[in-house]
Amino acid sequence: MKYPSALLENAVNELATLPGIGRKTALRLALYMLRREPSYTENFANALVALRRDVKYCRTCHNICDEEMCPICANPARDHALVCVVENIKEVMAIENTGQFKGVYHVLGGIISPMDGIGPSDLQIDSLVARVASGDVKEVILALSTTMEGDTTNFFIYRKLSAYPVKVSVIARGVSIGDEIEYADEVTLGRSILNRTSFNDSIKL
Amino acid sequence: MKYPSALLENAVNELATLPGIGRKTALRLALYMLRREPSYTENFANALVALRRDVKYCRTCHNICDEEMCPICANPARDHALVCVVENIKEVMAIENTGQFKGVYHVLGGIISPMDGIGPSDLQIDSLVARVASGDVKEVILALSTTMEGDTTNFFIYRKLSAYPVKVSVIARGVSIGDEIEYADEVTLGRSILNRTSFNDSIKL
Repeated sequence: MKYPSALLENAVNELATLPGIGRKTALRLALYMLRREPSYTENFANALVALRRDVKYCRTCHNICDEEMCPICANPARDHALVCVVENIKEVMAIENTGQFKGVYHVLGGIISPMDGIGPSDLQIDSLVARVASGDVKEVILALSTTMEGDTTNFFIYRKLSAYPVKVSVIARGVSIGDEIEYADEVTLGRSILNRTSFNDSIKL
Repeated sequence: MKYPSALLENAVNELATLPGIGRKTALRLALYMLRREPSYTENFANALVALRRDVKYCRTCHNICDEEMCPICANPARDHALVCVVENIKEVMAIENTGQFKGVYHVLGGIISPMDGIGPSDLQIDSLVARVASGDVKEVILALSTTMEGDTTNFFIYRKLSAYPVKVSVIARGVSIGDEIEYADEVTLGRSILNRTSFNDSIKL
């Protein structure tokens, strides 16, 4: 594709580096910016640069934040003895949206994936062990993806924490609310039968 | 959705203003930028700001360019008596990619669409008439979308140019190359029969 302007080609090249954005979409986005007022593109660019330049990570849970400590870790009303281990900040936001969790988080920054060259040392596992070793944590909930990589990471963390007097649990896996049993996959359905809950417990929720 | 950082929320808000980008995708893009080196986001932002700030439009054909005149209008090897009228610069790029057109362009900047509040005065129609009135143009090829708005714009331009000794043509409409006749829609198939080409002419292409 030949571009009539080097400026346009440069902008399209940059936009096309974003995941899921091809060159056609990138061109559409660049032309959209040309139709908007100049201050639009300036605000857009400033917001991205400011994010990358000024973003901080909570020194306790490694969640993204604007201060040295994230609002969740800084909140005295949360249960700091209950730590939920997640892959990324997107999972923190998803769990926070449920409104069901009153503990704090630990963001690993990924999961162990030898195929992608991500080993335990690339993740915030040592700092999790240090948090547990400090003795303030009573329970660690592993809330990673239910994939092979997630299971591997779960097991690795479980082994690392076995030296400490801490309860390690994983989030329940079963048939999603609203799903029909008929269409659930066999592994999920099998697990949901093995890990069945007492009816009395389930109606309390 | 609650964001752990105002900087992140601001960046997501800006990314989500782009057409076709929702808040979930915007968050994914913002997190992607955080994983890349800081210079990546800076180059990205600079390319967009530079495009918006420094872009020029060719004073003859209104195509986007880096100088006062676009490379196509400035090229003496092109046929300046043959003007192809297009809606936008994307169509210029598409036609240039065919390598079949040796004339020059005229970019309208849109098509007449009363539903979107776009009238003839919002488009570069007067400057097209002025180009034709100067007497250098022998043929105007209308290459607009084959929609009702495109047809309306074609007809408006045709009327405007009827006062001048210029040939006005439209691009051929018919069955696309590689399409099966069976699946062509009736209007297209009907037109392709009415506007049939002599076989001798067609094999010369």
